[in-house]
Amino acid sequence: MALIQYFARIQIESGSRKLIDAEAGRLGLKRPMVVTDHGVAGAGVLDLVLSATAQGADWPQFRDVPPNPTVAASEALLALYREQNCDGFLAVGGGSVIDCAKGAALMLTHDVPITELLARRGGLDRIGPIAPIIAVPTISGTGTEIGRGAGLTLADGEKGVFLSHHLIPRVAICDPDLTKSAPARLKAGSGIDALGHAIEAYLSPAFNPPADAIALDAIARLVDCLPRAVLDAEDGEARFELMMGTLEAAMSMWKGLGAAHALSMPFDDLGLHHGTLVGVLMPEALRFVLPAVSDERRTRLAAALRCDGDAIPATLADLNRRIGLPAGLAAMGVPEDSLERAGVVAAATPFNHSAARAGSAEDYTAMARAAFN
Amino acid sequence: MALIQYFARIQIESGSRKLIDAEAGRLGLKRPMVVTDHGVAGAGVLDLVLSATAQGADWPQFRDVPPNPTVAASEALLALYREQNCDGFLAVGGGSVIDCAKGAALMLTHDVPITELLARRGGLDRIGPIAPIIAVPTISGTGTEIGRGAGLTLADGEKGVFLSHHLIPRVAICDPDLTKSAPARLKAGSGIDALGHAIEAYLSPAFNPPADAIALDAIARLVDCLPRAVLDAEDGEARFELMMGTLEAAMSMWKGLGAAHALSMPFDDLGLHHGTLVGVLMPEALRFVLPAVSDERRTRLAAALRCDGDAIPATLADLNRRIGLPAGLAAMGVPEDSLERAGVVAAATPFNHSAARAGSAEDYTAMARAAFN
Repeated sequence: MALIQYFARIQIESGSRKLIDAEAGRLGLKRPMVVTDHGVAGAGVLDLVLSATAQGADWPQFRDVPPNPTVAASEALLALYREQNCDGFLAVGGGSVIDCAKGAALMLTHDVPITELLARRGGLDRIGPIAPIIAVPTISGTGTEIGRGAGLTLADGEKGVFLSHHLIPRVAICDPDLTKSAPARLKAGSGIDALGHAIEAYLSPAFNPPADAIALDAIARLVDCLPRAVLDAEDGEARFELMMGTLEAAMSMWKGLGAAHALSMPFDDLGLHHGTLVGVLMPEALRFVLPAVSDERRTRLAAALRCDGDAIPATLADLNRRIGLPAGLAAMGVPEDSLERAGVVAAATPFNHSAARAGSAEDYTAMARAAFN
Repeated sequence: MALIQYFARIQIESGSRKLIDAEAGRLGLKRPMVVTDHGVAGAGVLDLVLSATAQGADWPQFRDVPPNPTVAASEALLALYREQNCDGFLAVGGGSVIDCAKGAALMLTHDVPITELLARRGGLDRIGPIAPIIAVPTISGTGTEIGRGAGLTLADGEKGVFLSHHLIPRVAICDPDLTKSAPARLKAGSGIDALGHAIEAYLSPAFNPPADAIALDAIARLVDCLPRAVLDAEDGEARFELMMGTLEAAMSMWKGLGAAHALSMPFDDLGLHHGTLVGVLMPEALRFVLPAVSDERRTRLAAALRCDGDAIPATLADLNRRIGLPAGLAAMGVPEDSLERAGVVAAATPFNHSAARAGSAEDYTAMARAAFN
């Protein structure tokens, strides 16, 4: 088994699910609450995970994480956790499941309304240690298994963002076997999110050479393995590489993200799949941003993508086609009359300020129109 | 100012010493103990640092850090710290000064003999939080300003190694202005240590793609800037790059090091300059190790060093000449009759086990002989 200790503690290898008992023991967990959703449980992935443990069949389970996680779901999870006298979380699923566990673990140890801990209200400085989480991702993309962020929809419909290094799970057990059975659409949409993290982090102008180095390695890795992992479920090596590239992308994004993530936010709020949105928006976002990027940086990005410097947006559009992403926002169900308002929302996101080129509301609406069909 | 938050909190920029007050305030420090040595104080660098603070002239000072730090010096520092009612450390100097502060900060919060906290006695799991340290490096090389290690000579002469993420200073204030006045010999010997960290970490076989990516970036950066920084004290850009490459090298070395660091240890114990030893030993260490390295990895290392794959040791030997390192161990004062025993010590170090190719005592003695003249 390869042990990587970095921002987070990561166990990555085919079969690493067998380490859950040892890692739970290291954390002193005797009765973790298993958090998952019906998709993961129904596909047999939860059984695959729990059967690798000695006692997992006896651990209490919460399977009701919604596709886009909510504070309400975290509250329901927390109520069950208390009722069952659990001592930590075993989150088995995608970003929604892991973020739902983060929300419950946060509320358990912070006796204030969770809205007071939002990043935009200064939560970064007020969030302290949370209950231990073991994260077991079943799809590669968000990187929240080693990330310091959590996104939970609030009671009023706002997508609440929470940030703190205390939100990093105590260990991420990354077993590419668990990502095998996910639908190809979901693999593509989630994996392209990771590539978006790495590209937008690399282009973000903050000075951070180690993050740049990791981002470039992630880009080269992801652009190679993503089509193979999506198109051939039997390609275990590609699934491993996709998982590793996702982790690297998540490490690099401490630098900041950019225009594709900014513009995805208003459409995220419609309940559409976040990663797929990022993929669909990326070519137009890069057409907008790249003119503000230095020649050297554009050349290094192109080298990682194995294309010419002026072919970066077209290369990403081609990648989208190869992995079967929707042709545009319209095909995802975005109403055409939402584009104007979307531009206003995108321009106000923090991602617009960490982008290589800041856009106006009109700029973002123009990008959305260009990505519509 | 560029803020990088990574393993450690790093403030890096020409003039970043002006941030000491703000960073001390963030940590709640009102009366830090200034730790330094007579070289740093005598060269005016301490004044340069303290004059960038509002109250620094009033903070108590400990200037008696020896060239190779000892537990005895840390004890003397701690006694003064207690007498002066300090609430943290401001370590201004090279690796010796910062490690001396780490030793005192460790003893302050751990009520057991420090020898019980040695890495070889399982200290990694028993070291908890230590008193806050602000590290202000005045030479680029060791990277201990963001490192989790500390090396202190014990009462019996053993070089004690302590490891814990709690030993990472709370903030590293990296100001290349402060490295300007160091003697060229010291710049060369310390800077080549950083290159050694990056090369040996990259070649170490542990699986860690982000560390590999950071190491390659460090290697390309250091091989370019080190000669310029050593040969032209006015080249501030080179000093900045050397500082950044040193930080990246320190980040990458969590992977493990290799044969040059293994073989430096017995000669370190003679009181010789550690980094200079690493530089002098590196060409022979690589001649030994590279045959066990994959073609792909050797090719990428050569690309970072801007040479052919079979010219790596010669390129490093040439770099040594350009920056004025001694021609061999003999010129450093190593007695020829110590080489046999040195091989035995080197083979027993942990660095031998993280090297791409493990060596026997005879192998190491042969390397030392080849690097003798």
